[in-house]
Amino acid sequence: MRAVVCHQAELTVEDLPDLTPERGQVLVEVERCGICGSDLHARTHCDETAADVAELGYDHFMRSTDHVVMGHEFVGTVLDHGPGASRKAFPVGSRVVSLPVLRSGDSVHLTGLSEQASGGYAEQVLVTASMTMRVPDELDADAAALTEPMAVALHAVRRGQVGAKDVAVVIGCGPIGLAVIAMLKATGVRHVIASDFSPGRRVLAEQMGADVVVDPATDSPWASFAESKRYLTEAIALAELGLDAMDKLRAVPMLPWAHVMRAAEKVGATPRGPVVFECVGVPGMIEHVVANAPLLTRVVVVGVCMGQDSFRPSMAINKEIDLRFAFAYDPSEFHQTLQWIASGKVDVRPLITGTVGLDGVAGAFADLADPERHAKILVDPTR
Amino acid sequence: MRAVVCHQAELTVEDLPDLTPERGQVLVEVERCGICGSDLHARTHCDETAADVAELGYDHFMRSTDHVVMGHEFVGTVLDHGPGASRKAFPVGSRVVSLPVLRSGDSVHLTGLSEQASGGYAEQVLVTASMTMRVPDELDADAAALTEPMAVALHAVRRGQVGAKDVAVVIGCGPIGLAVIAMLKATGVRHVIASDFSPGRRVLAEQMGADVVVDPATDSPWASFAESKRYLTEAIALAELGLDAMDKLRAVPMLPWAHVMRAAEKVGATPRGPVVFECVGVPGMIEHVVANAPLLTRVVVVGVCMGQDSFRPSMAINKEIDLRFAFAYDPSEFHQTLQWIASGKVDVRPLITGTVGLDGVAGAFADLADPERHAKILVDPTR
Repeated sequence: MRAVVCHQAELTVEDLPDLTPERGQVLVEVERCGICGSDLHARTHCDETAADVAELGYDHFMRSTDHVVMGHEFVGTVLDHGPGASRKAFPVGSRVVSLPVLRSGDSVHLTGLSEQASGGYAEQVLVTASMTMRVPDELDADAAALTEPMAVALHAVRRGQVGAKDVAVVIGCGPIGLAVIAMLKATGVRHVIASDFSPGRRVLAEQMGADVVVDPATDSPWASFAESKRYLTEAIALAELGLDAMDKLRAVPMLPWAHVMRAAEKVGATPRGPVVFECVGVPGMIEHVVANAPLLTRVVVVGVCMGQDSFRPSMAINKEIDLRFAFAYDPSEFHQTLQWIASGKVDVRPLITGTVGLDGVAGAFADLADPERHAKILVDPTR
Repeated sequence: MRAVVCHQAELTVEDLPDLTPERGQVLVEVERCGICGSDLHARTHCDETAADVAELGYDHFMRSTDHVVMGHEFVGTVLDHGPGASRKAFPVGSRVVSLPVLRSGDSVHLTGLSEQASGGYAEQVLVTASMTMRVPDELDADAAALTEPMAVALHAVRRGQVGAKDVAVVIGCGPIGLAVIAMLKATGVRHVIASDFSPGRRVLAEQMGADVVVDPATDSPWASFAESKRYLTEAIALAELGLDAMDKLRAVPMLPWAHVMRAAEKVGATPRGPVVFECVGVPGMIEHVVANAPLLTRVVVVGVCMGQDSFRPSMAINKEIDLRFAFAYDPSEFHQTLQWIASGKVDVRPLITGTVGLDGVAGAFADLADPERHAKILVDPTR
């Protein structure tokens, strides 16, 4: 099969042996595979991630000296089955997506991010039958290829426990930020504020459903609902309100700072803090949110910031902030995402800004550096 | 009245005018006031905290150039009432505790941490009637003075949403860590692991009810239930289990790393990650926890680390860690704490390691630097 091999940060199209499904595996002919931001990062910085992941006991994350076929956002049609994989559940020719986790014998590997599990920038990929799902007939390959990144976003939204009346703030409108916007709207959140320096991405943020889109160079995403100063003034006013209420009901929280907000919530005076989705993943973003977000903000950290990052814990304490770090998804979230894309509840089309063949992957990696030109580029190995 | 005044980091006993209760206030004769770690910090670093708090819109936090009577963990007897404060609810001579938040006209100030609201290292203190609670008759002043710090601990435990079957890990056994141990046991948590370098504090940790007490110089608090490596091996084994289950039930989460732990929880195979209470509050502690804690750990940050602190967000993402920053308490938690101390459900006596008069406050601040000698020192202004 033809495949794009990453070795020493170089992407080269090579002819590799065809794959053979082992017990419980299904062989899939790749139709589309999305290029993920984490692939861009892994190409040049995988050794750093491999060291982190080795600390967790997984020693097979890709290293720069490995020869790895990347790609973990794939869709394709069934070619063949290994022993124990149901031909009835996945007939030859049927279209499937799969969680990018490959069971092989006694071990489990990360598809497209390990030399042990070849990925989707190739004509073929192996999937674990028990992690594989049929794509509904009405759904084409382009949209189905977005299942994986959209599932990341659904998981992040669930980690945030966002209610319909909460204000959600999405910082950074790259592919994951845009996916988070779509999933917030799909789950019924009424007020979604999105922020990105790029005009192109702000247009996409609107297309994905954001209610307010701001350019942080000229407007603050925080200003849209409350300045920090105004917030505290309001909190003290609410403390008054709480203090009065306390004379009658001796169990209403009302300390200045954080607790007054809970008092407010109980008396219906003001919403609780917003839920913020940090989708940038560069140093300083956590401190930016801690410094600017209002009291009782819940922050879901989706953007992966490598290396050390610093912030002020004392300010996080003053505001009683939650930092919830989100990783991947579970199969039920993956399945839900696939259904929502198929039913049209989530429209992923604005995200797709280009398609390339295997020969175009190296160029696409370079193009994705420019936020004005692209959000998601799909690889079509049949081109 | 006699009072200890903090000015330019010096603590001096001075004669100040007697206090007069304003509308809604009660005048209290102080019986005891605990010396809090945050007072030790505020004496020398209040300008830093004042700058943080000014960012939140509160401009009256103590500064080094102010003359402040500190002390916010007080108990005393009622002397007099301002207009609108109920004499029936708080008869003269009755013993009371109060949230250290003083309403004065249109403003609210932090008692003992602002020039606007004189604190408990004094013969008298003013309290807000609506924030004040009668001390049950059976409770003496020594134990009642611990209500405030114990309420901080109860609030932290609630922020952690710790279940009886969860493993709780308390890092740092200063007064707040010890209080957290007591509150974990009072709320029925069966497995409490505590860690401190100080032998004296480890003895106190046992007295407060910790089930396992470790010296981090020789033992890891994490080793007690699972090494990081073993944990991942177990996770991969559980992934296998999950993969098998998936063939039958297509909604069990089972990705390696974080999600497998949820799968495990569902099938009852292993507990979820522990709940960690970070009660040290020095730079590097958050990274220490992120690096060493198992997957899906929930961390309640109670120790106040001033200035910048750094950690690896990517590792927090890999493990899907929650960092929940905890501040103070609400009145219902304060009230609950008072009841639990009165009923004996929580025994605070081991915490009290000394009592001084107003003349002894400066010396006590110095003595508290040695963890072997002291946990909580009470000030008795009648001495």
